[in-house]
Amino acid sequence: MTYCVAMQLERGLLFMSDTRTNSGVDNISTFRKMFHFDVEGERSITLMTAGNLATTQAVVSLLQERSKSADERSPDILDLPTMFQVAGLIGQTLREVISQHDDNGQKASSTFSATMLVGGQIGNGEPRLYLIYPEGNFIEASADTPYFQIGETKYGRPILVRAYDPKMSFEEAMKLILVSFDSTIKANLSVALPLDYHVYTTDSLGRGRTGRIEPDDPYYQEISSGWGVALREAFSGLPDFSFES
Amino acid sequence: MTYCVAMQLERGLLFMSDTRTNSGVDNISTFRKMFHFDVEGERSITLMTAGNLATTQAVVSLLQERSKSADERSPDILDLPTMFQVAGLIGQTLREVISQHDDNGQKASSTFSATMLVGGQIGNGEPRLYLIYPEGNFIEASADTPYFQIGETKYGRPILVRAYDPKMSFEEAMKLILVSFDSTIKANLSVALPLDYHVYTTDSLGRGRTGRIEPDDPYYQEISSGWGVALREAFSGLPDFSFES
Repeated sequence: MTYCVAMQLERGLLFMSDTRTNSGVDNISTFRKMFHFDVEGERSITLMTAGNLATTQAVVSLLQERSKSADERSPDILDLPTMFQVAGLIGQTLREVISQHDDNGQKASSTFSATMLVGGQIGNGEPRLYLIYPEGNFIEASADTPYFQIGETKYGRPILVRAYDPKMSFEEAMKLILVSFDSTIKANLSVALPLDYHVYTTDSLGRGRTGRIEPDDPYYQEISSGWGVALREAFSGLPDFSFES
Repeated sequence: MTYCVAMQLERGLLFMSDTRTNSGVDNISTFRKMFHFDVEGERSITLMTAGNLATTQAVVSLLQERSKSADERSPDILDLPTMFQVAGLIGQTLREVISQHDDNGQKASSTFSATMLVGGQIGNGEPRLYLIYPEGNFIEASADTPYFQIGETKYGRPILVRAYDPKMSFEEAMKLILVSFDSTIKANLSVALPLDYHVYTTDSLGRGRTGRIEPDDPYYQEISSGWGVALREAFSGLPDFSFES
């Protein structure tokens, strides 16, 4: 499995992905699931992937190759004029890669399917965030649904629903996203640290702060243990049920 | 979907189930998913069901019919000497009902599968709690895993993991289980009030407190809104992330 969250804030976009991949519980590895396509001063695009690793690596490699060799067939993720067209290109590439294997009549114990999140900003456009389905179509985040999750989404969702606020600072948003990751990591072995993040500030049009949170990160450990204590306190502060009522 | 939780406490057992059934989002109904088999002073057995409604109703009807007509073939849920044998009988009945339809070569848009929780106490035995799989086999709760969930288990799990304590009073345990239900109900349309509960006190060997929590229940509403506030307070009490570290 995987867990990735992308969040639209008034200040910009925040991305976080875990790094665990597994084929059964006895075959786990660490792979990066966050990828950047930048042209400094012109565009910043961040892609996160969940699903079959061969599929997602093939999609990312195709996007990268097409952007490097000038004589490769277009379209090119570094040339397209809007985020909408970027999402369309990624969706089309994803669908092609999946159908290559499916159409071969190949069978696998798990499917070749994958889901992706892409967000960023190009030129004069607004920052945009899309969730791309294996079929190649996609939906865009809006004020009503300002964040997307892919992979193991359920354990970490309640706190996002309750505490998200578009006016949050990036520091608060990092805290929120880490609490959401912590709930997921505690519940599902197939989601694990280290975690990659990227903080994109609106109109910066370039790579923002990126980093990796390692298992021994003191802030993560503080959040992880502190959240347990805070939850129990919040819980004990609520009134008990009364059977007499 | 469905959400049911059964919990083993030092004082006894606590059961709660929702009542929503759905076949698609445009066909929802309210059905009871909690069933009791009692012989006052001798045994108290509580059964909760998740999965295909035709399957679970058939299983419960078979168990009830066999317990009513004396000339029906045994075994009988009201005669079996141990909870282990009761779990075995339910598992066998469940497997039979599922295989009747599957073996017919019938196809359905969803499967005929179902999962059940059964708990209670018989005579001098200890209170016991079992999770029964569609294949008819089952696992028992223990000190390490003192509660079981069936149906939509993920949203409501983090608070159970963090706040469960075997020494809890029934009043605290009701609060915990309602917070867990509230998180699930907020996230999944196919889980909904009213909620049925049964509180079984160890060695009482009879029906304990039962009741139904309706959508307008003031305590539920207090917990539901109070938990949102408490979560946000707990969250804001944690230190923010620092990008300088």
